[in-house]
Amino acid sequence: MYSVNENYLKLPGSYLFSNIAKKVAAFSAANPDAPIIRLGIGDVTQPLAPAIIEALHSAVDEMAHAETFHGYAPDLGYEFLRSAIAKNDFQARGCDIAADEIFISDGAKSDSGNIQEIFGPDCRIAVGDPVYPVYVDTNVMAGRTGTYDPKTETWSNVIYMPCTAENGFVPELPKEVPDMIYLCFPNNPTGAAITKDELQKWVDYANKNGAVIIYDAAYEAYITEEDVPHSIFECEGARTCAIELRSFSKNAGFTGVRLGATIIPKDLKCGDVMLHSLWARRHGTKYNGAPYIVQKAGAAVYTEAGKAQIKEQIAYYQKNARTIYEGLKNAGYTVSGAVNSPYVWLKTPDNMTSWEFFDFLLEKANVVGTPGSGFGPSGEGYFRLTAFGSYENTLEAIKRIENI
Amino acid sequence: MYSVNENYLKLPGSYLFSNIAKKVAAFSAANPDAPIIRLGIGDVTQPLAPAIIEALHSAVDEMAHAETFHGYAPDLGYEFLRSAIAKNDFQARGCDIAADEIFISDGAKSDSGNIQEIFGPDCRIAVGDPVYPVYVDTNVMAGRTGTYDPKTETWSNVIYMPCTAENGFVPELPKEVPDMIYLCFPNNPTGAAITKDELQKWVDYANKNGAVIIYDAAYEAYITEEDVPHSIFECEGARTCAIELRSFSKNAGFTGVRLGATIIPKDLKCGDVMLHSLWARRHGTKYNGAPYIVQKAGAAVYTEAGKAQIKEQIAYYQKNARTIYEGLKNAGYTVSGAVNSPYVWLKTPDNMTSWEFFDFLLEKANVVGTPGSGFGPSGEGYFRLTAFGSYENTLEAIKRIENI
Repeated sequence: MYSVNENYLKLPGSYLFSNIAKKVAAFSAANPDAPIIRLGIGDVTQPLAPAIIEALHSAVDEMAHAETFHGYAPDLGYEFLRSAIAKNDFQARGCDIAADEIFISDGAKSDSGNIQEIFGPDCRIAVGDPVYPVYVDTNVMAGRTGTYDPKTETWSNVIYMPCTAENGFVPELPKEVPDMIYLCFPNNPTGAAITKDELQKWVDYANKNGAVIIYDAAYEAYITEEDVPHSIFECEGARTCAIELRSFSKNAGFTGVRLGATIIPKDLKCGDVMLHSLWARRHGTKYNGAPYIVQKAGAAVYTEAGKAQIKEQIAYYQKNARTIYEGLKNAGYTVSGAVNSPYVWLKTPDNMTSWEFFDFLLEKANVVGTPGSGFGPSGEGYFRLTAFGSYENTLEAIKRIENI
Repeated sequence: MYSVNENYLKLPGSYLFSNIAKKVAAFSAANPDAPIIRLGIGDVTQPLAPAIIEALHSAVDEMAHAETFHGYAPDLGYEFLRSAIAKNDFQARGCDIAADEIFISDGAKSDSGNIQEIFGPDCRIAVGDPVYPVYVDTNVMAGRTGTYDPKTETWSNVIYMPCTAENGFVPELPKEVPDMIYLCFPNNPTGAAITKDELQKWVDYANKNGAVIIYDAAYEAYITEEDVPHSIFECEGARTCAIELRSFSKNAGFTGVRLGATIIPKDLKCGDVMLHSLWARRHGTKYNGAPYIVQKAGAAVYTEAGKAQIKEQIAYYQKNARTIYEGLKNAGYTVSGAVNSPYVWLKTPDNMTSWEFFDFLLEKANVVGTPGSGFGPSGEGYFRLTAFGSYENTLEAIKRIENI
């Protein structure tokens, strides 16, 4: 008789967004006229930029004729896209990354979930707390995390690195040395950024201790400050200790288009095994490449027109983030994030729990956000609002919160 | 110090297609004017059908406006596509499969590679021999296959089920009971089909012995015979023992568009654990859905226009398959496949090995095919030709082979 992967059964239910949906549905049923504004989602709302739409149409037309039809893509991605990423996202910033160190994928969620597979089963992971749930959950599925304590909502074999107001939401170097360190900056959910000097300390720590850093740079497009790095490869020595995950979702609005990239330098080795080779083998065996039309759309992001249009789109969301940040601050809230991020992270007032504040905000302002406790124990007492709504809705939501 | 997944290091190099490429390159260099025809590839060459192109353009236009823009897709797929598949591929054939038992993905390669992840580490797999390499390789990566014997090119903990001329390339029920049974019909690489009565025996065997069948139906569109099932769910009892993998690659030419589906009936349970729930958890945690525009293209496959156009495209490849089959037969070869498949499987003449025949065919006819031994030990002495070239090239290739 076959058996199932028992690790899957250890996963606690993922109730955050379904609980939110249930609460909002119940409130709407009781208050059918309440003009609810949703600032809880991490999904974009602006349409794709014209240069991207044009590239998509043009690629679709190519697929309509035998002479220009494209079948199986190279597993690791089309050269035209890998080169554009290498040049624009890395070499232009002085990062020593070559096109053949870039693997194209269907998005950073898949990559951040799958990357753990090339590591040994006994590797111990470290994560920020609060954190994007995919890092921990996929390691649970692989059996790396030990046992779950429902009281503390933590796993026995995970090193949690609290990100709190005290440390500016940037964790301390862990005292117990982990094997794999997940870092996400600018951070989801806190919106905190890390300076280049601070990140350099992590790179040095990883190199010194034989740890690998999995660096999630999905939100780098929102960086506005000079001393905040867009890539971990801006740090010296990162080529021997870091993997970087990139996304097209939040910079170019590809949440429904699906495109990402993972960068594994050829200098990153465990003994004499190149992690680059292992990931190439995984890509070649379990993946068949991102769609041609989507890779062409990705390349359009790096054209002059594409760059200009996307800059404008990001500026739109950045304006929303500033609007939320300033509005809440004026209303007396303790807020962070926003400056280099589409996320605003606020301390709940009057010692409310995250969920109490969720109910309070829904009832008094008809605004939906995300309880910080849903991202980990250190998120308790915090709340996330996002900049991905329309400007009009964002403005209205903040006016209502100010008026409570 | 972190470690790597040692199972990856056990994988022998995958040299089949790179060896082919090297040999062809060397031959071309020595014979620059040789008019080489490639009938080795499993990739389609005909452009996407007009109904699909239209759906793609229309979906791209939707992405250009905020009112019709689509962000994150449902992890498990859009209802419009799941319903179209349930209705057309299953309910229309009398198969009891509901839309919410269908999971949309980026293709059958990903699904056939990832599906093993929801099973226990001690499950023993059975595969046809020869076989599509992904089934075994992904179980190697998960540590299920024991040790590799380079002499026999087999793994100690895999049950190989020889598919030879003697059994009509349909394997016998294994004497040692496996936990997971991979079946692919119509088969890659042999092109063999299985009748409904024969497949029913496998379903009964699996139900009786507590095994699960992973049924790869990627080539079902090529079936021409009445008694050959298009889905394992045409068999009684399959809902309690089978998972089916579907592809849009070979029926609608989506090799470069990327779309697939996996069907897991809710009755398929290990104890009280529904495999459907495990796969839903995997999809929700490690995947973010197929692109909206690609799912719209998939739905166009099921429109009246789409169906008619795709039927024509499949007929084109079927004609190629018949041309190869008849031509080789007339030339005195022992051939099989083709009738329900885009693949023709031939016995090499004069006891040549598969690679000897590869060289022979390349040199004498300038035709490239795929050595059967590349798909497993029982493929030795066989050779695969595919119907995915143009009709003109196919005709010319066969003429040359006849004239050797």
